[in-house]
Amino acid sequence: MRYELYYWPEIPGRGEFIRLALEAGGADYIDVGNRSEEQGWGIAAIETFLGGEVTDFPPFAPPFLKAGELVISHVANILQYLGPRLGLWPGDEANRLWAHGLQLTIADFTAEAHDLHHPLGPGLYYEDQQEEAARRARQFISERLPKFLGYFERVLIDNPAGERHLVGETLTTVDLSLFHVVEGLRYALPNAMAEAEQEAPRVIALHDRVRDIPRIAEYLASDRRQPFSEEGLFRHYPELDSDG
Amino acid sequence: MRYELYYWPEIPGRGEFIRLALEAGGADYIDVGNRSEEQGWGIAAIETFLGGEVTDFPPFAPPFLKAGELVISHVANILQYLGPRLGLWPGDEANRLWAHGLQLTIADFTAEAHDLHHPLGPGLYYEDQQEEAARRARQFISERLPKFLGYFERVLIDNPAGERHLVGETLTTVDLSLFHVVEGLRYALPNAMAEAEQEAPRVIALHDRVRDIPRIAEYLASDRRQPFSEEGLFRHYPELDSDG
Repeated sequence: MRYELYYWPEIPGRGEFIRLALEAGGADYIDVGNRSEEQGWGIAAIETFLGGEVTDFPPFAPPFLKAGELVISHVANILQYLGPRLGLWPGDEANRLWAHGLQLTIADFTAEAHDLHHPLGPGLYYEDQQEEAARRARQFISERLPKFLGYFERVLIDNPAGERHLVGETLTTVDLSLFHVVEGLRYALPNAMAEAEQEAPRVIALHDRVRDIPRIAEYLASDRRQPFSEEGLFRHYPELDSDG
Repeated sequence: MRYELYYWPEIPGRGEFIRLALEAGGADYIDVGNRSEEQGWGIAAIETFLGGEVTDFPPFAPPFLKAGELVISHVANILQYLGPRLGLWPGDEANRLWAHGLQLTIADFTAEAHDLHHPLGPGLYYEDQQEEAARRARQFISERLPKFLGYFERVLIDNPAGERHLVGETLTTVDLSLFHVVEGLRYALPNAMAEAEQEAPRVIALHDRVRDIPRIAEYLASDRRQPFSEEGLFRHYPELDSDG
């Protein structure tokens, strides 16, 4: 199976959660947004799908995955589909439901990390909501960031199979996704994150283990990995960070 | 199986998406938050779970469902679990993935409907972010509300099984959830919704059919249905609505 990942080009964005799973699982895939329009890929291919011209299942927004005839939208839905096929998902029902719940908690965490630079919604530029963003960022840094990191720290502590993984005793998409959130927050809010990390040593140890997985290390060093920037989900605006 | 729904008392909130499925499916359930603390239920029972004292799977936040020994967090995860057990979920894989993607789109829509009165995040009162809310509400009304309603209208038009349901030819949790979003938006933004509805007649027809399902009609008239208020997810602040 050659999977097709549909996501906007040149940013990690929400597509990165899918890329990390495909890379860790050694999957054959096309990163459609980053391929050339001349070959029928690129943004035009994404928009054809969103326009509903080629499917009865038009997603509301990227990312979405094409797997044969299937079209699957939303990060958590895609990872729940890919996880078992790539050996990145727990086997028993209780842990599967737990993994999906954690994946959705990561989606909530990610949405708040996005909204700190877009508190008035996606329809305005950052520059048009800069003051509001400054207020929201202070809230995020003082309350939400430590709450979310502390939650995942406790999930690692409480895991009956040990603190090497969030769910059970093997690598899942949830570990990969939390790795990416740490990467993104370190880019976006280096000062705030340096402080918050001190209360979440197990989350950071998990991040480091994911980074060192051979397939992930190879991917991170490749040109398939898109750089963070102020076009993406995690943005570095120094005025939103805490003082160093 | 007697299900236990854990959600804050006295508001519909995100718990309502679960209640509607349980009610439509004729399930036996306990609405824990609305039961008395004297009998071991109520907010104390919710907080015991969130504190991780009685489970290896402590959710980040309500709602969550206890089904025997299983603990399941997040609306979409819970509905994906309950749907097949209550006869409210499609049978084939393509439609199951589609239904879950739509359920997650409704979660996104709901989050934006919440954030219009809390643009600076959940840590501040509405009164402390009233100006920002006014700006965000204008964005929501002019751009996001018509975009989301228009999307679901098109999903109904494009459904190969006909426009009576969002997915396939039978009632699913997705239909029930969209019904509730329409109810909530009519409460929160009556003027804006009256205008937006005109572009989404199939969504409104679906809403009306769900309202008239005997089990739903009985539930809506019962005291198990919590009233909307300014403590909940959908809040009516007249200053955020458009002019009538």
